[in-house]
Amino acid sequence: MPDLTPEEFRRLGHRYVDWVADHRAGIDDLPVRDDVVPGSVRSRFGPEASDGAQPLDALLPLVDDVVASADTRWQHPGFHAFFPANASLTSLLGEILSTGLGAQGMLWSTSPACTEVEQAVTDQLARALGLPEAFTHDGGGGGVIQDSASSAALVALLAALHRRSAATGGPAWRETGVTGTERVYVTAETHSSLAKSARVAGLGERGLRTVPFSPGTRTMDPAALADMLRADTADGLTPVLVCPTVGTTGTGAVDPVRDVARVARPHGAWVHVDAAWAGIAALCPEHRHLVDGVGLADSFCTNAHKWMLTAFDASLMWVRDARSLPAALSITPVFLRDKASDSGAVVDYRDWQVPLGRRFRALKLWAVLHGHGLDGLREHVRGHVRMAADLAERVRTHPGLELAAPPSLGLVCLRTTEGDDATRVLLEHVNASGRALLSHTEIDGRYVIRVAFGSLGTTDRHVDELWALLSGS
Amino acid sequence: MPDLTPEEFRRLGHRYVDWVADHRAGIDDLPVRDDVVPGSVRSRFGPEASDGAQPLDALLPLVDDVVASADTRWQHPGFHAFFPANASLTSLLGEILSTGLGAQGMLWSTSPACTEVEQAVTDQLARALGLPEAFTHDGGGGGVIQDSASSAALVALLAALHRRSAATGGPAWRETGVTGTERVYVTAETHSSLAKSARVAGLGERGLRTVPFSPGTRTMDPAALADMLRADTADGLTPVLVCPTVGTTGTGAVDPVRDVARVARPHGAWVHVDAAWAGIAALCPEHRHLVDGVGLADSFCTNAHKWMLTAFDASLMWVRDARSLPAALSITPVFLRDKASDSGAVVDYRDWQVPLGRRFRALKLWAVLHGHGLDGLREHVRGHVRMAADLAERVRTHPGLELAAPPSLGLVCLRTTEGDDATRVLLEHVNASGRALLSHTEIDGRYVIRVAFGSLGTTDRHVDELWALLSGS
Repeated sequence: MPDLTPEEFRRLGHRYVDWVADHRAGIDDLPVRDDVVPGSVRSRFGPEASDGAQPLDALLPLVDDVVASADTRWQHPGFHAFFPANASLTSLLGEILSTGLGAQGMLWSTSPACTEVEQAVTDQLARALGLPEAFTHDGGGGGVIQDSASSAALVALLAALHRRSAATGGPAWRETGVTGTERVYVTAETHSSLAKSARVAGLGERGLRTVPFSPGTRTMDPAALADMLRADTADGLTPVLVCPTVGTTGTGAVDPVRDVARVARPHGAWVHVDAAWAGIAALCPEHRHLVDGVGLADSFCTNAHKWMLTAFDASLMWVRDARSLPAALSITPVFLRDKASDSGAVVDYRDWQVPLGRRFRALKLWAVLHGHGLDGLREHVRGHVRMAADLAERVRTHPGLELAAPPSLGLVCLRTTEGDDATRVLLEHVNASGRALLSHTEIDGRYVIRVAFGSLGTTDRHVDELWALLSGS
Repeated sequence: MPDLTPEEFRRLGHRYVDWVADHRAGIDDLPVRDDVVPGSVRSRFGPEASDGAQPLDALLPLVDDVVASADTRWQHPGFHAFFPANASLTSLLGEILSTGLGAQGMLWSTSPACTEVEQAVTDQLARALGLPEAFTHDGGGGGVIQDSASSAALVALLAALHRRSAATGGPAWRETGVTGTERVYVTAETHSSLAKSARVAGLGERGLRTVPFSPGTRTMDPAALADMLRADTADGLTPVLVCPTVGTTGTGAVDPVRDVARVARPHGAWVHVDAAWAGIAALCPEHRHLVDGVGLADSFCTNAHKWMLTAFDASLMWVRDARSLPAALSITPVFLRDKASDSGAVVDYRDWQVPLGRRFRALKLWAVLHGHGLDGLREHVRGHVRMAADLAERVRTHPGLELAAPPSLGLVCLRTTEGDDATRVLLEHVNASGRALLSHTEIDGRYVIRVAFGSLGTTDRHVDELWALLSGS
């Protein structure tokens, strides 16, 4: 029967591990992004897969040739685009165990270990982040690993739709679907995944309401939110979810979670805090203010796969009521009926997510916590925050550059003083160097360069190199 | 800064690979399922994660102690429950490369390699399965790797909702959401993920219409479907999606895709073929009839992570129109605007799925195709189909047992001749042995044992062992 024998795997596994070790050891000498012609990778594959088997030793030079020369290197220390995606080597050890065990944790009974390690690790992380005890499994809520913050936002919205319809005594969302009156409240800085969630859930774009910023900020104005909620309710609309962001994608802005939640709750709206990027920083006492007010929220999300040394996918989501996601999402066909589930003594994580199947993702989190400890994670965050402060200070004192927004943790938004075209040229100049990769956004209609520190292996030398490119020195 | 050095990873990676090799080498000597008390795994973790780092060598004995004794072993050769979940060691080699590279393929430009290898491999697999050329990227359609068949069904439904609203000229689904008139057509054997998709998309349970079986079968009756579509349309309802299944979860029944599609298409309904488990068998010419009529469908899904030697998650989905998923799902905030995307020359897979981020999952498929070839995959399927035929023949000739449905590929449904209680006792007897794990379903209200062959390493000896347990010999 096919598959490698354990002994073949032992030999090949060592070689593949060595390939990764060599790749990472040499990554700083490669460009952050290769210049790739669309179609050039596909063209290396024939139209048909081979009928015959080929030695797996021979796949490595093929991968070198076809893939490793046509990539954008998210693990490069000069990668400062978008947000980081820390595929640490430590978490890869966890992934090896996860696929090695090959468990499928849709029900508690289909992998008690997969289920309970996820409960234990998310409880530990809730406490490490300073979330209220109510968000732990021990405390009546609980954590779950989603594939992405997009999926976390979607299931939060589904739980909100269910809760809202159950509370109003109107048509039941599980039975008759959405009514067209449901509204979701965001700002212009909220991640596009909230708009996508509203669309997926059948609300359409009209389901999304954009709350203005407080004057002089890029954060949600609680007073404006209060006005909108009152007016919408008076118009017969149904506020279902308000999403404050802790660390927006554009500029790292932090919405006032406590004030937003205080306004939203009396209207029966679910409060989902999207801290996808910045939430991890709350591991550090000096950034603990980032979770201020989260105790008033219904759900909270932050991505271990961004800035917490954990390979994608590992989006951490916590809810204050462990029943809320199953209440919205459970469907039990006869082939999934199970004694342990019926007992109510266990968590079946399939009811906490859209897909049925699930991998043992908690193992890589366990490996990261074990191998680095909370202090290691704090050191990781602090190093990048320090580099961002360093870069921001250099920008402040440079005559041709200016900060486009207040620096936020590891994120610096800057532009030239000469206008959008010059800023665009500067971004292209940096990216063409191969030594750093930056991305862009717009603030008040103006083109802005984003520098997001957070990648593995970034050091002060990389900040110096980047500065030389940005400053023309 | 935290993370292992490449040299530390090299040493530890070898150890972790050895752990997996040893685990797999010894798995047949372990029970398929441990007897676990709810809460016993969680109780091994303290409430707080440690501040300090600990050696990663020490994690392995911990995993042995806490996890490896509290698992349901999906990779055990005696695992015949649900459907198989082939986490092959070959695909683990691909996973090592994937996390090693750490690419994030949300846009073509964020990882051209991740995007184009996925295009190339899904094109090759479309041809290997006998799908029409229209389902390839070369042919104007294309393949995408979803995390699960649940997600494939969901995005098919979203594309259907968009296409339907665009075609009718009524309210645009992207703008105003669902109207409450949309209907999805399934049978009582259709996977529960379709009901979940309808709920997620805001249609509710009333959005799901259950088409009767053809007399004497458990497959969708095209004539009954035609009647329902006509009646619903006359009632002002909107048929949006019909889902024929190739290989249902309960009994492996195969809906008549061609006839169903012929009925559905004139009504403007999207035809999504769910072949999550059985579709892979179409790699074998003798099972090619499984994709008969798929050329009339809009989308097709089969899971490489079930029976095609590929670790979860790798659900293969193809659409006949490459524009259909982006048309429904794309949202482009300024920070994701990109020259290559704007050129239209590339695929941005974020618009083919609900999440934004995505892993380089095509590498494990490439490793499997490379290392085993199509002939290896066919041999895998054929071995299990032969074992199922063998077991079915033994059941047929045993006085105390009977087949509860016609055997389908690797799936055998059986029961005792003494009624449901005896069948339930027999299932518990087999599962308590630790030598095999079976699951159950119901057919016409009667309790039925499912035996799904398809796991790695299952041999004729395992069939003999299972038979001894089932037959009491």
